[in-house]
Formats: sequence, structure tokens, C-alpha cells
Amino acid sequence: VSARTITIIGCGLIGGSLLKALSRQGAPLRAVDRDEKTRLAIHAELGLNAQADLSGVEQSQLIVLALPVTQLSELLPRLGHALAHSAGVTVTDVAGIKLPVIEAMERWLPSHVARVGGHPMAGKERGGYGEADAALFEQKTVALCPATHDADALRTVEQLWHGVGARTLVCDARDHDKAVARVSHLPYLVAVSLSLVAGRGDSLSARLAGGGLRDTSRVAADPTVRQAVTRNPNVAALAREVAAELLALANAIDMGQPTDEALDAAAASRQRLFPVR
Amino acid sequence: VSARTITIIGCGLIGGSLLKALSRQGAPLRAVDRDEKTRLAIHAELGLNAQADLSGVEQSQLIVLALPVTQLSELLPRLGHALAHSAGVTVTDVAGIKLPVIEAMERWLPSHVARVGGHPMAGKERGGYGEADAALFEQKTVALCPATHDADALRTVEQLWHGVGARTLVCDARDHDKAVARVSHLPYLVAVSLSLVAGRGDSLSARLAGGGLRDTSRVAADPTVRQAVTRNPNVAALAREVAAELLALANAIDMGQPTDEALDAAAASRQRLFPVR
Repeated sequence: VSARTITIIGCGLIGGSLLKALSRQGAPLRAVDRDEKTRLAIHAELGLNAQADLSGVEQSQLIVLALPVTQLSELLPRLGHALAHSAGVTVTDVAGIKLPVIEAMERWLPSHVARVGGHPMAGKERGGYGEADAALFEQKTVALCPATHDADALRTVEQLWHGVGARTLVCDARDHDKAVARVSHLPYLVAVSLSLVAGRGDSLSARLAGGGLRDTSRVAADPTVRQAVTRNPNVAALAREVAAELLALANAIDMGQPTDEALDAAAASRQRLFPVR
Repeated sequence: VSARTITIIGCGLIGGSLLKALSRQGAPLRAVDRDEKTRLAIHAELGLNAQADLSGVEQSQLIVLALPVTQLSELLPRLGHALAHSAGVTVTDVAGIKLPVIEAMERWLPSHVARVGGHPMAGKERGGYGEADAALFEQKTVALCPATHDADALRTVEQLWHGVGARTLVCDARDHDKAVARVSHLPYLVAVSLSLVAGRGDSLSARLAGGGLRDTSRVAADPTVRQAVTRNPNVAALAREVAAELLALANAIDMGQPTDEALDAAAASRQRLFPVR
């Protein structure tokens, strides 16, 4: 194992995409996945012998935990043990929520391990290695929340993401979680709620369903967001805000009251967030 | 004016797209738009002298009312007057809600005019002739709701849409309005409510906003849906259903209760509506 080895633990959509993108660069790579089919697919496609366990992980320069937040709590104690006598190792992750992950890393990893929380703002409708795509991170933003004061470690993680075409943005973990509650976890809950109600329609409604419903409901099927959403303490209040807006619109429509102000404000807000022309 | 002339009244996104697609086929066409800039653009691009008024409209075989539902109430009395002595004219429209339009057509158009309500399930983020696109209707569904028993008239309107690449689906106006409430007007209100709340975030949330929010909020800026939504009597109850789902999810998240059942059901519902693989 080279001293500059990058180890990716978890080779689903995010970890697998990172693996594919990095293997093109010829970087010294190790992959860990507990699923045998995934390991065989990695070997067949990239010629890389993915391993099922953590043996040798302490010799990595950089370890990327590409697991859903639910699986980190199981992995981190074992990883902490494996890194007890390591030197110069940086650990980063890809979970959609940062404060609980950073707290768990602080609890389970030895203090000599540099820790940088990471969150690539990239997803797909389906997860798993089969969906992995070397181009997944191109032009995407990756939020980085350094948990230890280590400029070299931060630079290492920044270089990882810049190397696969992403831009990075350093921010505080609490601020990150508040912001993604609004722009990622809230849209997920909205898409989920819409999908539940849309699915109660008849066959005519299914036949008339077009691009509007397709886009508005898309992230309901996105497995990359789901795990983080229910662990974000900021999202419930925002979901209630959206519910209140919906109820206000429903009441106005029922009463024949004007809705132009709200509809104009929404169109303007959307235009500010995603300018067209 | 040829007896087979198609007249398009209103040359915004939908009417303009139809005009462009039909002019490629060399069909005898007339265009009516009250906006001078639009008329000049049509002349510059298609070499067609669009007119500002309805003169000669009674000589059309087919008249397409490509106006928002709000403008139909002003146009229909004048059109009814113009068609008082016409023969063999079919009138169709493109509004997103059909029952009120069919009732207004029945009220204002002479009984010898064949009437077929129409609704192309196609839109864009911006309206206006400048956004018109000859390919807009390709592979899209157009719902048709015949208001008079006239098989020839229905066939004429079906041929219009098939000729520009769309498929047609004949249904009852009441059923149509119920179905689009669920799959088109509801997603619009959901996107509007989300856009309002998303827009209240700070600059970090704007920088972290990605594909999830972009897709979930897209139709909030779609001008083609807006006019019909608030005139659909079926949509308010559905908006309340979505609000109830959001509040239930918010409560479960706050109480640390499991949400897997709802999230699984939503993903399955979305997969049924828009199968991936």
C-alpha cells in the first residue's frame, strides 16, 4: 500500500462514482465493500481487488466513508480501532448531514486522525454501484466541514473533489445542516408527500402525468438523501412552513380570493434561486 | 383564405409553437395576436402576416384558441359574433382546465360551431412567442374533450396534434379536470409553496441548492399552468392532503418515530408513475 493511497469504504452510487473517477487518474486506490456482488463488479470493471474488511486501512493517506449515515455508527468504532496506531490519516465522509457525523467521528476516531466532513450535492434516482458514474460530480458542489484544525487535511480532501470535477465550499457543520434542510431535505419531504397523493389517482391521471409531476416528485425516489433527512433537526419546522403555504393557497382558491401575490412571489423566488436567462 | 385554413388565436408559447410546427408542413395558416411585437416576430421568422383582429376568421376550418383561460372569457363573445354565419368550423383550445372552458364555449359560440376542448400537456419555464419551439409537442400527450357530437371535428383536432408529434387521449372534461388537478395543478401548488420557503434561506443555502430543489421547484415558474390552477375546483382538497402528509412527516421526525413506511410508499408510488428501468 502506497502512503498516498485513497481508501473508499462503501462503493454504492457515491463511493462507486468516486472510485470510477479516481481510477481513471491512476491514483493508488483501495475499495472496501461488504457486498460480494459489488466487489466482483469492481474487479470486473476496474481490475481492482476490493476487500470486504478494513485490513490495511491504517496505511491510507485518505479514507472516504461513502456510506449512508445509518451505517456510519456501526463502522466508526471498528475504524477507530483500526486507526489506533495510524499516522497522517485523514478521514472524510459523504453523508447529507454533517453535525451528527462529525460528533460520531469525534467520539470514535482517535484524536490523531484528521477529520473533514464532506457532502457532495449529487444524486440520482437509483442507488448502488450499478448506477455509479465517473462524471457524477462534475460541476457539482461539495460542502466541506473541517472538524479538526488541519490545513493539510482540508487541502487533501479539496484536491480529491477538485480532481473529479467538483467545486468545494467550506462551511460550518451547523450552518450546513440548516442550509441543506431547506434546499435538499425539504424538497425531498415535499416530493415524498406529493408522490403519496399523486399515487392515489386513477388511470387517467397516470396517463396525463407529464413533466411537471415527474420533476416535482423526482427526489422522492432518490435513495441518497433519505437517510439524512430524518436525522436533520431543522427540517420539520420547514415542512410545517410549506404545509402552511399549501393550506393558505387551498383556502384562497376555495374562497375565490386572489392568489397572484403568492404565485408571483414564488415565481420570483424560484427565479432568484435558479436564474433563467 | 383556403377552406382548410387553421387559425391560431394567441401566439405565445403554445400557440407560437403550434404555428412554427404547422408552418413547416406548409398548412394554410392564419395567426392572430394582439401584441405587435409578436406579430412582427412571426412575420420576420415565418413570413406570415399575423393579424390583430378576428376579421376573416369565419372562413377557417379549424380555430385554435391558444390563450390563457383568463383571456378566453373576453375573446369568446367576439368570436361567437364573428362565427354567427359560419359553416363547418371547429373550435378547440389549449387551456389547462376543460369544464369551465367548454361551458364558456357553449354559452358564447353558435350551436353550429363544433367544439372540442384540448389540453396539450407541455410547458416551459418561460412563456411568450420568444420561447415557442416547433418540437414542443413531440411525444407529449394532448387531452381532448369533445363538447359536441361531431366525429369529423374530433378527427380534425386529432390530426392537428398528431401532425406536430403529439399523441391524443379523448376523455370527459370533468374527469380531465380531476386528473390534472392531481398530476399538474397540485405539483404546481407544491412547487409554489416550496419556492416560497426555499427563498427564505441565507446565501449558504442558495449556494448549496442543487438538482433536487431545482427539479422540485421548477413548475413554480411555469406560466402555462398558473391560470388554470386557481380555476380548478378539485385542487384545494388535494393541496390539503399534501399538507397533511407533510405535517405527519414533520411530527414523526420531531418525535423520532419511524418514517420508513411513508418514505417506501412514496418511492414506490413515484416508481409506478414514472418507471425507471
